[in-house]
Amino acid sequence: MRGRFITLEGGEGSGKTTQAALLGKALAAAGMKVHVVRSPGGTAVAEKLRSILKTREPGEELTPETELLLFGACHSQMVETLLKPELEQGIHVISDRFFDSTKVYQGYARGIDLRMLDEINRFSCRGLKPDLTIVLDLDPELGVRRSSGRVDRAAFENDRFDSETIAFHTAVRNGFLQLAELEKDRIRVISAEDSVDKVAQAVRECVKHELGLELL
Amino acid sequence: MRGRFITLEGGEGSGKTTQAALLGKALAAAGMKVHVVRSPGGTAVAEKLRSILKTREPGEELTPETELLLFGACHSQMVETLLKPELEQGIHVISDRFFDSTKVYQGYARGIDLRMLDEINRFSCRGLKPDLTIVLDLDPELGVRRSSGRVDRAAFENDRFDSETIAFHTAVRNGFLQLAELEKDRIRVISAEDSVDKVAQAVRECVKHELGLELL
Repeated sequence: MRGRFITLEGGEGSGKTTQAALLGKALAAAGMKVHVVRSPGGTAVAEKLRSILKTREPGEELTPETELLLFGACHSQMVETLLKPELEQGIHVISDRFFDSTKVYQGYARGIDLRMLDEINRFSCRGLKPDLTIVLDLDPELGVRRSSGRVDRAAFENDRFDSETIAFHTAVRNGFLQLAELEKDRIRVISAEDSVDKVAQAVRECVKHELGLELL
Repeated sequence: MRGRFITLEGGEGSGKTTQAALLGKALAAAGMKVHVVRSPGGTAVAEKLRSILKTREPGEELTPETELLLFGACHSQMVETLLKPELEQGIHVISDRFFDSTKVYQGYARGIDLRMLDEINRFSCRGLKPDLTIVLDLDPELGVRRSSGRVDRAAFENDRFDSETIAFHTAVRNGFLQLAELEKDRIRVISAEDSVDKVAQAVRECVKHELGLELL
């Protein structure tokens, strides 16, 4: 059987990385071949490009166009070097983010022309799409708190978040929810407000139900 | 006065780098502010991407799509970080290659969809085009000999070139000539078979005539 391509999406602090690892363990425990990767990344070239995307160059900003083109280059390398061969060998690939993040962050939240963005996603992935995308949905304020490790302090302090940060993360959340509405055949939304274990169980149930994989 | 953006294009061994430097000296000698750059390159980020484009990664090929997207990212950085501010300050920018090379190498010679290629060039450069592009035209066999330093040996040896190499370089040459036909308002073709000095003189005459710059 051809492997399935599963992506986990969502805003900051929604637990994508943790849940991708747990889902990978669940598939492996059920005797399946599985590869957990992150995007952008997953290949040597894509990891180099990821580092350019993440590193601040003194005196030079990455343009929004450059960001989009570099994400596209990462996807292109991941599709050709990793996804196509592994899926053909029956390996399930779980990716912590993929092109839906590009659409939501660069398109919905930063305002890059969506038609161009779709064209570049299609071009870079040669039409390959995830078989299942799970959006881990979380209140943005909670997400930013989790991701900045301020969960404990928040109870004691009159915590203030930069309003722009919250506005941005709200745009991201709404973007993922909008995308889930538009691509109902592929995208499922799971609340990430529960405990890690409960969310992991919901993710496993979703994968069993949607893809028919026999998980414990 | 706004600076002018001049690009030198052509196949391997056609003398672009040498002629770009000589034209830069001629403009400087006439008292103009001038910056000679290479593309892909010209900014810190673009130079990093250039190195990814030029370095062979063990076990991983760059896909044609990745190449095109990385060239686009380089152009985007060069346009925003270097070209726009310098041209506005009245600095003339001379670039050793620019997006016409992408069109000819990736499009005409390697067969990437030309519509997508044009879209990415437009997107990455935000519509900015060279004021003048000079194609240095050379017989491909002579170009490959020059660029591999085999000019002298060639006279003595029964020199054989890989036929695929020559076919590829012929496609590149034809691509540049075709482009010059399509964009007559911007592209001029100069024979690069003469001596360096004679070609440099022809380049200066062309810049004087086309852009009205007062060169000696």
